[in-house]
Parts: sequence; C-alpha cells; structure tokens
Amino acid sequence: MAIKVHGGLFSTATMRVLACLEEKELDYDFVPVNLRAGEPKREPFLSLNPFGQVPVLEDGDLKLFESRAITKYIAYKYANKGTPLISQDPKEIAMECVWMEVEAQRYENAAAKLTWELCIKPNIGMTADEAVVEEYEEKLAKVLDVYEDRLAKSKYLAGDCFSLADFHHLPTINYLMGTKIKALFDSRIHVNSWCADILARPAWKKVFAMKN
Amino acid sequence: MAIKVHGGLFSTATMRVLACLEEKELDYDFVPVNLRAGEPKREPFLSLNPFGQVPVLEDGDLKLFESRAITKYIAYKYANKGTPLISQDPKEIAMECVWMEVEAQRYENAAAKLTWELCIKPNIGMTADEAVVEEYEEKLAKVLDVYEDRLAKSKYLAGDCFSLADFHHLPTINYLMGTKIKALFDSRIHVNSWCADILARPAWKKVFAMKN
Repeated sequence: MAIKVHGGLFSTATMRVLACLEEKELDYDFVPVNLRAGEPKREPFLSLNPFGQVPVLEDGDLKLFESRAITKYIAYKYANKGTPLISQDPKEIAMECVWMEVEAQRYENAAAKLTWELCIKPNIGMTADEAVVEEYEEKLAKVLDVYEDRLAKSKYLAGDCFSLADFHHLPTINYLMGTKIKALFDSRIHVNSWCADILARPAWKKVFAMKN
Repeated sequence: MAIKVHGGLFSTATMRVLACLEEKELDYDFVPVNLRAGEPKREPFLSLNPFGQVPVLEDGDLKLFESRAITKYIAYKYANKGTPLISQDPKEIAMECVWMEVEAQRYENAAAKLTWELCIKPNIGMTADEAVVEEYEEKLAKVLDVYEDRLAKSKYLAGDCFSLADFHHLPTINYLMGTKIKALFDSRIHVNSWCADILARPAWKKVFAMKN
C-alpha cells in the first residue's frame, strides 16, 4: 500500500513532509485537504489528527501527524533510501537533535509568524500587522546571529552533513525569500550560502513547484 | 568523567534534564548557574549555549543544550540503564515522536506561559497578567481535551508504556498543580489519573524536592 499524505500545498508543514518523501525517493499519494473550507476541523479528518491540522501521513496502518515527527519517522524507517537525513553516529545524532530543537523552538516561532503576516495574510485578502512584523523580525535576527556564528564553523547546522536540522527550515525560508525579510538572510554571509545551498536541493524545488 | 549539568533548580528545562538522569540512575554533577544575575547571558556560559539559556549538559567532550534534545540523547545513549524512556519498536517510536512534538509545540506553548504568569512572576515580585492567563488557560483546556480522549484509549500518550512523551510534561504540570490551573487537569478523569501517575515517579519527586 502506497504512503498517503493528507495536506494542503500552501501549508509549510505539508511541504516539509512532501519534500522529505522526495529526498527519500519514495512514492506517495497526495490527498488534498481543503483548508479554506475548514475540512481539517471536521470529521473524518479529526479522526486522523485530533488537533485538526495538516499534514497527516498514512503508511500501512500507521497514521501520524506533526510534520517533524513524520520526517523523523521517514528518515529512520527509510534510512537506506535516497538522501541520508539523520546520522548513524550517536554524537552526530545528538547534535542533530539539538539543532532540530533550535529550529522548532526558536527559529520557527519567529519565522512562522512572519510567514503568516507577510505571505499568507496578503494571499487571503488580509493586511499584515506591521507591529507584529517588527517584533518578530527582531527575534528572527537574533536567532540568525547565532546561526551565522555556527555556520562559520560547520557547513550545516549540526555538523558537516546536511540533515533534518537544516531541512526543517526550508518551507518558511522559501516563503520569506519573497519578502523584505530576505535581507536578514542575505546580510549574513554564512547564512546566505547555507540558504542558497539548501534551497537548491532538487527535492525541495520539486515540491515548491507543485504549489504553482 | 562524570556527566555535568549546568542549570537552575527553578528552571523547568533544568528539572526535565535532572529528572531524566535520575530515571536513568546516572551519576552527575550539578553546576548551579545564577539566573537572576544574568549569568547565562554572559561568557563563559554563552560558549556552552549561544542562546544563553539553561540547562547545558556535558558528557565527556559532548556539550548539549535544549532540554528535549538532552533527554533524547540520554534516553538513547543510556538505553540499557534505569527506566526505558524510548521504545525499541519503530512504530512505537513514531508514536512517541508524534506526542513529543505535541508536547513541545502545543502543550508547552500554553503551559509555559501559565507557569510564568502564575508561578514564576509572583515568586520574583511581579503580578500575573490576568488577560494573558485567561487566553492561555483556554488554549491549554483545548489541548487537554485531546489528551483526555487519547488517555481514554491508552494508559500513556504514545501507547501503553511511559515514555519521554509523558515525561517531558512533568515540570510544568508540577508547577501548575499549585495554581488554579489544577482544575483543568483534575476535571478530566483520564488526564487526572495520568498526572497522578507520572507525578508520583520517584525520580521526579527527588528532583522536585531539590529545589525546596
């Protein structure tokens, strides 16, 4: 039975999961969920994810939600297919865990808010709240200062190899590259190279093209 | 060389790491960091964690920050010591990852805010912001509704075994039990039993007693 992904192509969390499947060169069926019509907040979707959010992955009888849990599952279960996304070395895994937490707890907080204000709201006829943008721009800048120091010492966040810790950033970085926030990434030389590197991955480009 | 934990006993993230070491029956040295004096925001601490927050774990030459990354490292590296905190079965690991993400992304957001307002602020001479409390109380209630359904079907969040997915909740649950938020946990029968169960763990009681 093929892997099934229930999601929406504008959802950063859905894009994260689809790109992971592409990195792993896995076949899957994409089941579009109508976000604007509120489909995730009703049954039968709520039985897949009680929090009413996309994406959901079905692999055989396993039903998973939370995009970062899904990518970890794919990376471990299909370790021998496509791009390695998690190391086999315990110390490297530990560093990958640290930087995955940094992404989820620190980077995402600011980046998701800015993506919402500057990319999603204008797309659905709403206006960005400039005070919110300013507040989260400052927060994101502080996180990127730490990234700049880190990426001066290693090619990728967790070390010398590309991993889920870098990969998880892709959807929001790609969105924010179309906004004034691009300057925050461009003005930091190592962050800038890192962004160019990870955005150029064929798996990512394929998923980003799907929504156009 | 013994494991070293740099932290503060009132920090929920530090308590999470110490309790994990206790569950694993590991020896460690606790290095107190003066949070009120802003020690984490200055060198030499910043070289341990560029985000300037406790805790940091040192295990040999490995230096790790982000409490949930540290607990995962301990759970994997010391899999055969003390309490098993992560399953060996890939499907069970996947479910543990899902509920660890739920804790970190959904529960923690509300619980940490309420802990700050109702437990930490009064402790340092500040007053809780009632509007903020009300907003996050509502958010926490929604998360706990999902937990109640889940815990009606399985003894623990990820399945029938206690795991990091449950364990990560302990510091904020323990703090909130001393506030009016206790009612949110008590009024949900399965959540209530689950709280009583995990709060009674000897490893947790030992760490909670350390701060008194």
